[in-house]
Amino acid sequence: MRSNLFFQQLQNNYLFSEVNHRIETYQIMHPQAHILRLGVGDVTLPLPAPIIDAMHKAVEELGHAESFRGYSQEEGYIWLRQAIIDNDYRTRGIQLDLDEVFVSDGAGSDLGNLSELFDQHNRVAIPDPSYPAYVDASLMAGRDITFLPCSSDNAFVPDLPAKQADIIYLCYPNNPTGTVLTREQLQRWVDYARQNHSIIIYDGAYEAYIEEDDIPHSIYEIDGAKEVAIEVRSYSKTAGFTSVRCGYTIVPKQTGLQTMWLRRQCTKYNGTSYIAQRAAEATYTPQGKKAAQANVHYYKQTAQLLRNGLQALGYQVYGGINAPYIWCNTPQNMSSWEFFDYLLNQCQVACTPGAGFGQSGEGFIRFSAFSNRKDCEEAIKRIKKLA
Amino acid sequence: MRSNLFFQQLQNNYLFSEVNHRIETYQIMHPQAHILRLGVGDVTLPLPAPIIDAMHKAVEELGHAESFRGYSQEEGYIWLRQAIIDNDYRTRGIQLDLDEVFVSDGAGSDLGNLSELFDQHNRVAIPDPSYPAYVDASLMAGRDITFLPCSSDNAFVPDLPAKQADIIYLCYPNNPTGTVLTREQLQRWVDYARQNHSIIIYDGAYEAYIEEDDIPHSIYEIDGAKEVAIEVRSYSKTAGFTSVRCGYTIVPKQTGLQTMWLRRQCTKYNGTSYIAQRAAEATYTPQGKKAAQANVHYYKQTAQLLRNGLQALGYQVYGGINAPYIWCNTPQNMSSWEFFDYLLNQCQVACTPGAGFGQSGEGFIRFSAFSNRKDCEEAIKRIKKLA
Repeated sequence: MRSNLFFQQLQNNYLFSEVNHRIETYQIMHPQAHILRLGVGDVTLPLPAPIIDAMHKAVEELGHAESFRGYSQEEGYIWLRQAIIDNDYRTRGIQLDLDEVFVSDGAGSDLGNLSELFDQHNRVAIPDPSYPAYVDASLMAGRDITFLPCSSDNAFVPDLPAKQADIIYLCYPNNPTGTVLTREQLQRWVDYARQNHSIIIYDGAYEAYIEEDDIPHSIYEIDGAKEVAIEVRSYSKTAGFTSVRCGYTIVPKQTGLQTMWLRRQCTKYNGTSYIAQRAAEATYTPQGKKAAQANVHYYKQTAQLLRNGLQALGYQVYGGINAPYIWCNTPQNMSSWEFFDYLLNQCQVACTPGAGFGQSGEGFIRFSAFSNRKDCEEAIKRIKKLA
Repeated sequence: MRSNLFFQQLQNNYLFSEVNHRIETYQIMHPQAHILRLGVGDVTLPLPAPIIDAMHKAVEELGHAESFRGYSQEEGYIWLRQAIIDNDYRTRGIQLDLDEVFVSDGAGSDLGNLSELFDQHNRVAIPDPSYPAYVDASLMAGRDITFLPCSSDNAFVPDLPAKQADIIYLCYPNNPTGTVLTREQLQRWVDYARQNHSIIIYDGAYEAYIEEDDIPHSIYEIDGAKEVAIEVRSYSKTAGFTSVRCGYTIVPKQTGLQTMWLRRQCTKYNGTSYIAQRAAEATYTPQGKKAAQANVHYYKQTAQLLRNGLQALGYQVYGGINAPYIWCNTPQNMSSWEFFDYLLNQCQVACTPGAGFGQSGEGFIRFSAFSNRKDCEEAIKRIKKLA
C-alpha cells in the first residue's frame, strides 16, 4: 500500500491547534489569569427557541413508529431544499432547480469534498490570507496553488490571477479579513472564470452579516455566474449551528458538475441528520428568521465595538462591518505571532495570528465578534492600558 | 478546469435508484397493489426511549447559554470515544488509545473518504458481490480493482487475491450475502495483508447481528490486525441511527495512517452533531444497550422467519443468522433482475437484485430483515402460491 504522498506537502501545525496550545500553556503557567478569548470563530449564543422547538419535535418523531424516518435522500429533504430556494435565492431574483441544491452536514465538508470533482492537474488560485482548509484540501489533491496576495495596498481585495487559474476559491464576506466584494468586483471574477473556463468555489458562510446595499449576498446575483460558480453556505454562523451541523451547496447544471456532485454524495455520504434538517427548516419560519437575525445583530454589535475600540486606539482595522471578523494590523513591526504572544502575555487577550492564514496575513491579527461581549469590552480596556 | 475523468468509469445507474424506479413505476401502473418492500436496507423500528431522552436533553442544552456548545472536536467528544473503547473493544480484550478513535456522521462517509489516504496507484481488491460504494469510491480515485468472486462454490467466502492487492475492502457480517468469517478465516486475511503490506478496510456495520461464538466482532481480535486494518462501525443498524447519523472509525497508529486521517478530518470535516454524539453515548448505558439489543433481536427474528420460509419453499439461502440480510438463489436460471421483476409483478414483493452488487451476485436476490414483520410473513405466503 502506498499512502497519499501529497499529504507530505501539508505544514505540520494546524493554526487553531497551535493557538489553543499557546493559550493552554499560558493558562497552566498562570492559573489565576482570566484569559479573554477573542480569537474563536465559533458561535457562543444559545440556539433560539424556534429552532430548539423544531429539534425537539423531530427527536420525538423518531421515537414513534408512525413518524419514524430512516435515511434522508443524500441531497436532503425536498421541503428543506424548497425552503432554501424560496428564502435564500428567489427573494434575490435567482432561479434554481431543486436538484441543484445539496444539503449537507456543513460547509466544511463540502468545501473539502468538492475537490474530488476535479482532475489533479488543475491550477488552484487562493487569496492570501485565507481559511487554511482551501489550501490544505488542494495540497492533499496534489494541485499547484497560485496565491493571490491581499494587503492594505489592495484593501485586501485580490487582483485577478496573472496566470491561468482553473479552480478559484473565494470567500465573501471574507474570513479572516472581514472584507467584502462589491457587485462590480465580483462581476470581474465571474467574467474571468467564463473567459478562462475556470470554476469558482464561492464560500458564502458569512452571508448573513452583509448589511451594505451594493454587496451581493449570492454569487448568482452576478450575470453568468451559474456557468462557473459553486456556492457553499452554512447555518453555522447564520443561525448558530456549529454543534447541530447543517449547510448546503449549490451546484448549477450549467457548470457541468451537478451530476458528478450528486454521484459523489450518493457514494460517499448518507444524508444529513433529520433533526438538523428540521432545525434548518425552522430558520426560515417568521419566528426562526427573527431569532436568527437577532443573534446575527448581536454579533454585529460586538464587531462594531471591537472595530471602533481598536480604531480609537490607533490600529488600522479592516472588516467588522459586513462580517463578524476584524482584521487588525500589528504595531511596531511586530510579527503576527509576536503580537499574539504579546497580547496573551501582557493583557491575557487571545486573538488569531494573521500569518496562520497565509504569508500575506503577516503583520495582522484577527479578532472574532463571536466572542463574549463583556470580554470584548474588557479586552479593549486592557489593550488601551498597554499604550 | 478539467473535471475528474475517473467519474466516467462509473456505471450510470445506481442500484437502489433503479430498484426504486421500478417499484414506483409498478405502483403507478397498479395503484391498488400493496407492494411488500423487502429490499430496504434501512431500519424501520423507532428509536428506543433512552436514546430519544438523551437527544431531547442534548437539544435542550443547546438552547441555554450555560450549557450551549459549539464545534465538537473533529474526532468526537472524549466521553464518546472513551465509551466506544470501553464497551466495543476493551470487553473483547482489545486495547485502543483515544486518538485512534474517530467519531463521524456515519460509516458511509468514512468508507468513502478513507480512499483519500492512498495514492492513486494502488490495486484494490473487493469481494464480488459487495456494497457498491467500495467499487465506486475506488473508481472515482482512478484505481484498478481486482474482484474476488464469491459463489455457492466457496460458500460466499472469497479466496485470497491471486495478484498483489494493496487495499482490501472486507465487510463482515456481509452485505449483501449475510455471510460471516470465522476467526481462522479472518486470520488468513490479516496474515495476507501483513505479508503483502496491504491495508484492510473492514466494514463492521452489522457487527451487532453476530450471535455465533467463533465469529470475531472486531478485526482487532485477530493477531496482527492493528498493523494492517482500519475498522469502520456504525450506529445505524446497531441502534437505528440512519436518520440520526453517527458512526466511527478506528485507525490504529501501527497502520501509519492515524495522523493522516486526523489531518484529513480536521481539514474536511467539522465534527459530528452534538445531539448525535449524545445519542451514541446513550447506546452504552444499561437501558440503552438493552433497548438497542431488543431492536436487533426483533430484526434477527424477522431474518429467521424469512430464512426458514424461503428454505421451506426450496430456495438455497445464505445469511440471516449473524446478519440482517438473506441471500437467496433465483429459480429456473432466471437472472437477478428477471426474478426481481417476476416477484414484483406476480406477488408484489420487492427485493434487491443480486447482480446490482456485482457480477457474481447474478442469480441471487437479497432480502432485508429490516422490513416490516407482517410484510415478510405475507411475502412468504405470496411466494408460496407461485410455486
